[in-house]
Amino acid sequence: MPAGIGIKVPWSGTDEKGLGMKYDSILLEHGGGGLLSHNLVVEKFLPLFKNQFLEQLGDGAVFDVSGARLCFSTDSYVVNPVFFPGGDIGSLAVHGTVNDLAMCGGRPLFLSAGFILEEGFPMADLEKIITSMGQAAGQARVAIVTGDTKVVARGAADGIFINTAGIGLIEYAGAIGVGSIQAGDVVVLSGTLGDHGAAIMSRREGLGLSTPLISDSAPLNGLVEEILKASAHIHCMRDATRGGLGAILVEIAQQAGFTIEIQEQSIPVREEVKGVCEILGLDPLFLANEGKMVAFCPSDQADTVLSAMRSHPYGKDATVIGTVKPAQGKGRLIMHTLIGGSREVDMPTGELVPRIC
Amino acid sequence: MPAGIGIKVPWSGTDEKGLGMKYDSILLEHGGGGLLSHNLVVEKFLPLFKNQFLEQLGDGAVFDVSGARLCFSTDSYVVNPVFFPGGDIGSLAVHGTVNDLAMCGGRPLFLSAGFILEEGFPMADLEKIITSMGQAAGQARVAIVTGDTKVVARGAADGIFINTAGIGLIEYAGAIGVGSIQAGDVVVLSGTLGDHGAAIMSRREGLGLSTPLISDSAPLNGLVEEILKASAHIHCMRDATRGGLGAILVEIAQQAGFTIEIQEQSIPVREEVKGVCEILGLDPLFLANEGKMVAFCPSDQADTVLSAMRSHPYGKDATVIGTVKPAQGKGRLIMHTLIGGSREVDMPTGELVPRIC
Repeated sequence: MPAGIGIKVPWSGTDEKGLGMKYDSILLEHGGGGLLSHNLVVEKFLPLFKNQFLEQLGDGAVFDVSGARLCFSTDSYVVNPVFFPGGDIGSLAVHGTVNDLAMCGGRPLFLSAGFILEEGFPMADLEKIITSMGQAAGQARVAIVTGDTKVVARGAADGIFINTAGIGLIEYAGAIGVGSIQAGDVVVLSGTLGDHGAAIMSRREGLGLSTPLISDSAPLNGLVEEILKASAHIHCMRDATRGGLGAILVEIAQQAGFTIEIQEQSIPVREEVKGVCEILGLDPLFLANEGKMVAFCPSDQADTVLSAMRSHPYGKDATVIGTVKPAQGKGRLIMHTLIGGSREVDMPTGELVPRIC
Repeated sequence: MPAGIGIKVPWSGTDEKGLGMKYDSILLEHGGGGLLSHNLVVEKFLPLFKNQFLEQLGDGAVFDVSGARLCFSTDSYVVNPVFFPGGDIGSLAVHGTVNDLAMCGGRPLFLSAGFILEEGFPMADLEKIITSMGQAAGQARVAIVTGDTKVVARGAADGIFINTAGIGLIEYAGAIGVGSIQAGDVVVLSGTLGDHGAAIMSRREGLGLSTPLISDSAPLNGLVEEILKASAHIHCMRDATRGGLGAILVEIAQQAGFTIEIQEQSIPVREEVKGVCEILGLDPLFLANEGKMVAFCPSDQADTVLSAMRSHPYGKDATVIGTVKPAQGKGRLIMHTLIGGSREVDMPTGELVPRIC
């Protein structure tokens, strides 16, 4: 398996492999890579921060405050390069948290922004990034309402890191989460895989492509609104960020205790992305996306959900890619391949691509 | 003025001095220093993120969601050294955001935690830090409910940076904020100044002190609960973090458009802190605190507020340090000094101490 770009580690999950944490120091794989990231969270963070909310399965925490059902999520952004085709660290920092809130079924309302700047960072670049954040927030209809700026000496950080946290309001009646997934559900994917990861990697590696690759970084809350309006039976949603579709589906299968079967032939991948993957030895299944999601719903809702997705610009290539089946033993992800076989897809453990988001 | 440790820059304020931003790149002073930090926020961030919430004056944003009055705040922590007498970056990251929420009059409920780790960071140190965060959260009665971990290559960050964001619930009927301050209000300080800044600096400079200095890092939400329970007339609260008491009072005076007069002799400073300040050329008035606050209230509430503060361990040295008067022109901070004179205190513009929090 060429590239474990790393899972978007929700702070939840099960140590399905039972591998102990045997590392004396942090490795790059602890941040971006599938299994090591997963274990770091499960073995170190969860026991010490133990609470019912953290153990929810999802992209954020869901709780009630004075009768309002809220979701709350955070991500730090360390993407390298800071500017890439289709976006920059600023727009990415808005889209990422907006999308995590949307995946909880929440309408994103408010964001915080925390900047860590390296002494000497060009002011013009900072202005471009803030401008981009403001525009991204406007497009996603969220307000950046509070923030913080720290500066560290040259060499103590790499240019700029941004953290965003966000609050969303959940008005959807159904329970959205891994626990709601049922046997018979279909898996609907909103579009092509790997655009963000391939765009970052081709820029980082200096590939001179005839067709430039563009990151798919986008706010998915509008798309999610359409989906939730169309169907009262959405069981689970997840955006396929770090680690790509492969890692999130493995994780969901394990957490839900079901077998997820997907058809390789039904997964849309742009030719340019395939090309970059061939050159760099990457697998689109594990490449990061920043504007793609999957939704789980009963099969009789598939057409409704597909139509809703396709009616939105960010879901125009939506397609059903798989189904949920009872597990024989543990939950797992099975891919029926193009050449007619089928194989179990594991959480990526190999080398990884750091700073993809 | 020896040390502008830097203001806790709320994302709000007025460019009172009208100094333009004339820098091509980020300086250390943009992060920790009074005026440059202030200008960066006012001239760059505010116009691009423009919204009514960001322009509120305070340590966080306050808004209503479905009938619940909430506050929301964030800070990134880059303190160096990571472990210091009285705390570490983990407990500090909890206390800092808990305190910002408390200063909004909110009861802190939920925190997020975003980690940026440098490859090679010792796992044992990470465990100590997470353990400390968990304990600090428990003591402050908040739950860390969502999080994120990123890892960057060696040299791309300095060990560990932590961002926390938090949500608090406001149940206090009065409007707490700079806009509520009135002429005649008194300024009540909860305790000694400069303990955190002096502890960090003495550790960083390797001063071998006979009496070790301890940071005052502490959660102030319990103290604030006592204050709000005691008086229905609290006008404003602010914790005196980056930039110390001096910077926050200058900022409040400017924003409120009042003259704040304080008595130097009434400001409690430990002898050990005075000693460190003399050795290192620092001014306790501008040294960071992580467990001290001021409250503004009408003079007839002063005794009530003082009693409430003194009944709590974190407010046992509370004292009235000043009063609010109508401004002659712009709002400003006047200090009546020990030797009998009085001088205007400006926002720090000199050299600063980076990474104090």
